[in-house]
Amino acid sequence: MPENENDEVFRLHGGKEQGVLSISPRFDVTNRTELGEAYTPGVAEISKLIEHDPAAKKKYTMSGKLVAMVTDGSAVLGLGNIGPAGGLPIIEGKALLYKNLAGVDAIPLTLDQVPVDDFVKTLKTIATSFAGFHLEDIAAPRCFEIEEKLAQEVNIPVYHDDQEGTAIVVLAALINAAKVVNKNLTDLHVLLNGVGASGVATARLLLEAGIKNLTLVDIDGPVSKDDQHYNQYQREVAAKSAVQTKFASLDEAIVDQDVFIGLSDANVLSATQVKKMAAKPIIFALANPVPEIDPAVAKEAGAAVIATGSSQYSNQVNNILAFPGLFRGLLKTNIKKVSFALEAAIAQGLASLVDQPTAEKIVPGVFDHGVVDAVTNAVVDFAQQKH
Amino acid sequence: MPENENDEVFRLHGGKEQGVLSISPRFDVTNRTELGEAYTPGVAEISKLIEHDPAAKKKYTMSGKLVAMVTDGSAVLGLGNIGPAGGLPIIEGKALLYKNLAGVDAIPLTLDQVPVDDFVKTLKTIATSFAGFHLEDIAAPRCFEIEEKLAQEVNIPVYHDDQEGTAIVVLAALINAAKVVNKNLTDLHVLLNGVGASGVATARLLLEAGIKNLTLVDIDGPVSKDDQHYNQYQREVAAKSAVQTKFASLDEAIVDQDVFIGLSDANVLSATQVKKMAAKPIIFALANPVPEIDPAVAKEAGAAVIATGSSQYSNQVNNILAFPGLFRGLLKTNIKKVSFALEAAIAQGLASLVDQPTAEKIVPGVFDHGVVDAVTNAVVDFAQQKH
Repeated sequence: MPENENDEVFRLHGGKEQGVLSISPRFDVTNRTELGEAYTPGVAEISKLIEHDPAAKKKYTMSGKLVAMVTDGSAVLGLGNIGPAGGLPIIEGKALLYKNLAGVDAIPLTLDQVPVDDFVKTLKTIATSFAGFHLEDIAAPRCFEIEEKLAQEVNIPVYHDDQEGTAIVVLAALINAAKVVNKNLTDLHVLLNGVGASGVATARLLLEAGIKNLTLVDIDGPVSKDDQHYNQYQREVAAKSAVQTKFASLDEAIVDQDVFIGLSDANVLSATQVKKMAAKPIIFALANPVPEIDPAVAKEAGAAVIATGSSQYSNQVNNILAFPGLFRGLLKTNIKKVSFALEAAIAQGLASLVDQPTAEKIVPGVFDHGVVDAVTNAVVDFAQQKH
Repeated sequence: MPENENDEVFRLHGGKEQGVLSISPRFDVTNRTELGEAYTPGVAEISKLIEHDPAAKKKYTMSGKLVAMVTDGSAVLGLGNIGPAGGLPIIEGKALLYKNLAGVDAIPLTLDQVPVDDFVKTLKTIATSFAGFHLEDIAAPRCFEIEEKLAQEVNIPVYHDDQEGTAIVVLAALINAAKVVNKNLTDLHVLLNGVGASGVATARLLLEAGIKNLTLVDIDGPVSKDDQHYNQYQREVAAKSAVQTKFASLDEAIVDQDVFIGLSDANVLSATQVKKMAAKPIIFALANPVPEIDPAVAKEAGAAVIATGSSQYSNQVNNILAFPGLFRGLLKTNIKKVSFALEAAIAQGLASLVDQPTAEKIVPGVFDHGVVDAVTNAVVDFAQQKH
């Protein structure tokens, strides 16, 4: 892919300045008085205060608001393992959205692809500077271990957008899709195809949300708790699924399913397979940039509700619906852990933004008024009920 | 020291927002087209470009301009070891100055006080995100080792302001002070009191600048290359000093010195000692917040030129004169190492900003017009001559 200097994307990201963000002073320093207040000697008073009352750090330094957007570029959607430098434009763009959409200050931070313990240790060592860690585009299974261990080591929220973010928006969409087809959410037979980071996290949340009939399928067929081919996180979630090994392939497993959720690859679902599903099938074909099935083909095959991850079609199930308001909520409430109950509450908040769900509108649009506030409020309400 | 909410300092640093900096988007994202350019799918083109041409990272992401201001808070001027959280307001204020004075984007980053190798490893692991490392307030001798090892491990500039920054401004001040007393710079007999990070770095630069008669004194008396009480960095610089062990104390060593440079503690130099110095003595009493000798006392005792680190007196020898323009220059030129030759060139550039040095004006003021540009230009000129 040749670099095209005239392309608007390249001009935006590399025009007069490098990247899409800059650091802004909150005030100017133009004379000795201002210097003494912004820097020494005045600032020494704040340093001394913090030395004796560590909690003051949060109030008087940027560390009370600054989120580190962390990636090692090992699992970038649609691009795979492109390394930390390759992953940098993605997290920078996402940090831009944080500020633009939710007023959250976030800074892109890459880590080399070091072993899990070193990864956690690196972030722990610099954690004093930050109000939270947003993990992004980190490959499974190391992302599970990193998130778990890091959350134990630091005293600020740790959130992996590819996991919790995806799970939330999928559940929100499913709540409304069930309404459209007039089926009971927890009675739905759901096939989830693709058990990477987002697949595992989505499966976990669906189980917690009461979905009783969940079948997990990956590229090699159904996921079983006894198959050592899968990692412990995949096997754990498979063990909790009602349906496990009776099918040999996606083609068999798809029969009579109410829902297909694809977090996998382009074009893995056929029209023939859609036709084998239960009446009024729901198709979430979330692979990016090319979905598991073309929405037109799915519709032609009888799908009642179709969603993708792309803005080209109606019903874009995209993490942007969740993360800006979610992290704003975490910062407002001092909630450290994005629990299943919190994820479910946010999903419910998002779903309820659509007054009367239809086949063409099961989730709000990314730029719809009130999305960020609704998510933030869901977090704040949750915190008030729980604490 | 009780926190006083009405104090302007506390209001500035912890008013409506936490800290003195914020993250600014360089443009707004308000619709799908802009979203596609700032974030996905457009940004994937940049990620792919960087994957295949790592050098493009510098042009199309913030990592081409962003400086990490790094501290572990182990040696904060005037406050000592107050820990990373305590050190945070200082580096945040300094990052503010970077942007205000030189347009340099810098972000405060604390590290826990981990062993040297872990410190270096932590910064190496996140180096892809940054255009340079500005080290700050790190105790000696670990600061020497950290700077040396880190520079070997990463491909971006590493600069320790307490070392190189101080050395540069002291040399600049000494160049002009020598003119005021009509003595030859390299013939000056210089006593340097205090061999911490800044003392060692200043001694190194003075030796490189041709000072032939340098005496190093610390709290326990003269520093000798054979005294294992001192660390290897102190002994190395002592070995290069012409004068070493013939004095038992500061009181003896001060006799007939042309220059006293204090990078030590409040009130360690007496009027009686100033009177023992050579004719027209030069006194740099740079301890903060209280200098080694009160300027009025030093003047009364016969000092011809007096400088301090404080803005209360004339001749403020402060790193702010150097670091903003210096790092802007490093980013412009791709110079990685702040060598002695570069330090000397910058000192000369700073000194020459004062047309006709007098006892009251040997260095430009921090807010004097042209200071930052002069330093930047010194770096750029140096790069052009060398490369």
